[in-house]
Amino acid sequence: MSFEPGLTDGPTSDEVVAADLAHVFHSWSAQGSLAPIAIRGGEGSRVWDHDGNRYLDFSSQLVNVTIGYQHPRVVEAVREQAERLVTIGPAAANETRAEAARLIASHAPEGFEKVFFTNGGADANENAIRMARLYTGRDKIISRYRSYHGNTGAAIVATGDWRRIPNEYARGHVHTFGPYLYRSEFWADSPEQETERALHHLRRVVQAEGPESVAAILLESIPGTAGVLVPPPGYLRGVREIADEYGIVLILDEVMAGFARAGRWFAFEDHDVTPDLITFAKGVNSGYVPVGGVIISDPIAHHFDDRVFPGGLTYSGHPLAAASIVASIRAFEDEGIVEHARMIGDEHIGPALRALAERHDVIGEVRGVGVFWALELVADRTTRAPLPAADVARIKSGLVAAGLLPFVADNRIHVVPPAVVTAAEVAEGVGIIDDVLSRV
Amino acid sequence: MSFEPGLTDGPTSDEVVAADLAHVFHSWSAQGSLAPIAIRGGEGSRVWDHDGNRYLDFSSQLVNVTIGYQHPRVVEAVREQAERLVTIGPAAANETRAEAARLIASHAPEGFEKVFFTNGGADANENAIRMARLYTGRDKIISRYRSYHGNTGAAIVATGDWRRIPNEYARGHVHTFGPYLYRSEFWADSPEQETERALHHLRRVVQAEGPESVAAILLESIPGTAGVLVPPPGYLRGVREIADEYGIVLILDEVMAGFARAGRWFAFEDHDVTPDLITFAKGVNSGYVPVGGVIISDPIAHHFDDRVFPGGLTYSGHPLAAASIVASIRAFEDEGIVEHARMIGDEHIGPALRALAERHDVIGEVRGVGVFWALELVADRTTRAPLPAADVARIKSGLVAAGLLPFVADNRIHVVPPAVVTAAEVAEGVGIIDDVLSRV
Ligand SMILES: Cc1ncc(COP(=O)(O)O)c(C=O)c1O
Ligand SMILES: Cc1ncc(COP(=O)(O)O)c(C=O)c1O
Repeated sequence: MSFEPGLTDGPTSDEVVAADLAHVFHSWSAQGSLAPIAIRGGEGSRVWDHDGNRYLDFSSQLVNVTIGYQHPRVVEAVREQAERLVTIGPAAANETRAEAARLIASHAPEGFEKVFFTNGGADANENAIRMARLYTGRDKIISRYRSYHGNTGAAIVATGDWRRIPNEYARGHVHTFGPYLYRSEFWADSPEQETERALHHLRRVVQAEGPESVAAILLESIPGTAGVLVPPPGYLRGVREIADEYGIVLILDEVMAGFARAGRWFAFEDHDVTPDLITFAKGVNSGYVPVGGVIISDPIAHHFDDRVFPGGLTYSGHPLAAASIVASIRAFEDEGIVEHARMIGDEHIGPALRALAERHDVIGEVRGVGVFWALELVADRTTRAPLPAADVARIKSGLVAAGLLPFVADNRIHVVPPAVVTAAEVAEGVGIIDDVLSRV
Repeated sequence: MSFEPGLTDGPTSDEVVAADLAHVFHSWSAQGSLAPIAIRGGEGSRVWDHDGNRYLDFSSQLVNVTIGYQHPRVVEAVREQAERLVTIGPAAANETRAEAARLIASHAPEGFEKVFFTNGGADANENAIRMARLYTGRDKIISRYRSYHGNTGAAIVATGDWRRIPNEYARGHVHTFGPYLYRSEFWADSPEQETERALHHLRRVVQAEGPESVAAILLESIPGTAGVLVPPPGYLRGVREIADEYGIVLILDEVMAGFARAGRWFAFEDHDVTPDLITFAKGVNSGYVPVGGVIISDPIAHHFDDRVFPGGLTYSGHPLAAASIVASIRAFEDEGIVEHARMIGDEHIGPALRALAERHDVIGEVRGVGVFWALELVADRTTRAPLPAADVARIKSGLVAAGLLPFVADNRIHVVPPAVVTAAEVAEGVGIIDDVLSRV
C-alpha cells in the first residue's frame, strides 16, 4: 500500500469499520468474523481507504465496476438526472428509460427489441424464468451445479453452488454438469470431447426429465463465480440445438459476463449462438445505480402483447439507473471500452498470467478472456487437488496487504479488474501476485 | 390540467410515449394496451408531462414518493455521494452506509441494531423469510390472501392476491384471512368481534399446520395495495401473542406502511406490538434510489454471529441509496414530516373523504390514517357489491383528465399523496374526486 497524505481528514478507517460493524448486516458471512476495508474513494482501477492507503482493484468489487471508479461522464449523468427527475414509477413513460432500453437493445442481436428492467441480477433471472414458464406453459428450469444466479427464491435454487443448499424452497429446478475440462465430469481429455460429452449429458437430462416439462435452460454464458469457465468450442451452439429440438427457451445469464467483461458486448457473441432471453446487470452501468434486466426476443415479448405479464417491481426502469446506463453505454462506444477489454486480455492479462503459471507450480490452470480470468490454485499439479483453504486465505491477505484487491473464490484467484485497466496496471497487479505467491 | 408554457422544449409527450412503447417492457400489464403518461419533471406533490400538463399526485407513484418530488436535500445528497463515491461493494465498510443503518435502527424499537440492505421490497421480504427459516429451523411461512409482498420467488408466493396464482413455484407458504370488517370473512359485526375471530382463525391455522413447522407469520402492518386495511384494535397484539406462544418469528412488512405513510415511523407503533423482523423500502428514501432492507432484532442478528448468513446481493448497502436514506431521514426529522403526515390525515384527508362519502353513495367505506387512505367504491351500499371494473376505469380516466394522478386498485381509489401534501392540495384533490364522482 502506498500512503497518500491529505486524504486523511474525517474519520479513520478503524472508526468507519466500527460504525459498519455496529449496524450493517453483511451478505454471505458470519457476522462475528468480518474485517471489511473502509473504502473512501476511487478513480479508474484504484480505491483508497480513510487512512490514505491505496489499492489496485483486481476484483471490480463483485465484478461489477467495469467502467472503473468515478467515470466522469457517468457520474455527471447521475447528477444531471437527479436534478431533473430523480424518481418516477414504472407505469409512466420516461425519456431516459426509453433511451436506456433502446441503447441496450441496439447492442443485442437482431430480433431483441424490448427490455424489462429490474433492480439487479437476481430479479432479472426471476423474471426471465417467469417469462419462459408462461411462454412455454412448462415448468422446469435446467441450470448447472457450477453457477450463481442470485439470492431470491427461484434464482437461488437455479444456482448450483453451496448457496443453494440452505435455500431450497422453490420447486421445478433441475441441475446438471457443464463442461469444465480441467475437472471434467465426463472423463474427457480434449475440448472437443468435453463439448460432445457435456452435450450428450444435457440431452439425456432433458430426455429423462421429459422435454415437455422443461421451460428453459438457464446458463451463464461464461460461468463466473464458479471459476470463469469459458465454454469449449461448440458447446453453447450445441445447447441451442437441443433447446430448439425440444422447444425449450434458452436463457443466457450475462449478468457478470456481459457488457465488456468478456471483451464483447455479450459473451455469447464468441460462441455463435443467440439465446431467447438475455439477463444483465453489473457491467451495464457498472453498478453506479442498482439495476438489472431482461432483454427479450420478439416472439416472447409479443406473447405478452395481449396477455398480462404477471411480474413487476416498484423501481423497474428507475430513471437514475437509466441515466447511468445511457451514459455508460455511450462511454463504452465512444471510448472503445469493449475493444480495450478484449485487447488487454489478449495482449496483457493472458500472457502475463500464463508467464506467472510457468514460474509458480501452485497455478494449475489459467483461463479467461477480456478482463475475466481465473488462476486455479492447486496443491499438486498432477492430482489437481485444490490448494487448501488456509493457504488460499494466506495468499488473499498477502495480496491485500500488498495493495491489491483480489476476487477469491474457493481455490481460485479471479483476475477481474475494471475494463479500463491499463497495461501498466496489469503489470503492476500481476507483479504483486508474483511476489505474494513467491513468499507464501 | 393546467398548461404551463416554457416547459415544452425537447420531445413531446407523444414522442416519449412512442419511444417507451418501442423498447420498454412494462410490469403487470399486457404490452399491447398501454397508455403511459410521459412524466418530465416534478416538485413536491406535483408532476408535469412534456407538453406542459401538470398533475397533482395522489398516488405517490407506487406509494413510494413519500417526501415528494425533487426534495432539494435528498437530491443534493445523491449528487454529493455520486461525486464522492458512487458505488462500492457490500464487503467493504462505507461511511454513508453505516450512517444509513444507524439512522434506520434509531427509529426502530429498542433491540434492533442491525440492518440488512436489499434493492427493494421483494428481496427485503425474501431475506426476512430466509432469516426466519434459519433462525427457527422451521419451514412454513403464514401470510394473508389480502397482501402483496413482491415479485420474486418466495415473495410472490407469500403474496395473497391474484399475482400469486401464475407464479406458484415456491413451497412452504400458507395463506389465511385477516381482519377486514367491511367484508368480514368471519361473520363479525364489530371491530372487537372481527379481531377476536380473526385471531381465533389464525390460531387454528397455526395449530392445524403444526406449530413446529411454522417459521414465520409475515404480515403487512397495514395491508396496502389490498385496500389500506387498518387492523382493528388488538389484532396485531394478538398475533404477537400467538407467535410468542408457538415460537414463531413475526415479520411485519412495512414496505408501504412505514416511514411516514401511516403517520408514524412504523405503522405498527399504533398497535402496541414489536415484531422480530421489519422489512422496509419505498418511504425510507422515497425511491430516489432503489433500496430496501430488513431491520433485525438482536436475537436473530446474533444467531448469525458465528453462522454464515446464506443471502446477499451485489448492491446490498449501495452508497448512493445510503446517501439518499441519510438525507431523507434527516429531512423527516428536521421538517417534522412524520408528524405532518399524521396531522394532515387526522385533520384534512380523513374529514374531507368522510364528507365526500356523505355526498356520494358510490363510496361504501372510507379507511385510513396519515397519508394512507382508501375509498371503497360500491354499486350498492347495502349489498356492498364492488363497483364494476368498467365504472372504476371511467372514474380513473376522469381523474387523470382532470389533473389528478390516482392510485386505483380493484374497486378502490387509494388516496396516498406524498406526506408533504398541503391542506390546500388535499382540498384541491378531493375537490377533483368530488367533481368526477358527480359527473361519472
Ligand atoms: C452470473 C450472475 N447472475 C446473477 C447474479 C446476481 O446478481 P445480483 O447480485 O445483482 O442479484 C450474479 C451476481 O454475482 C451473477 O454473477
Ligand atoms: C407491502 C409491500 N411489500 C413489498 C412490496 C414489494 O416492493 P418492491 O416493488 O420494491 O419489490 C410492495 C410493493 O408495492 C409492498 O407494497
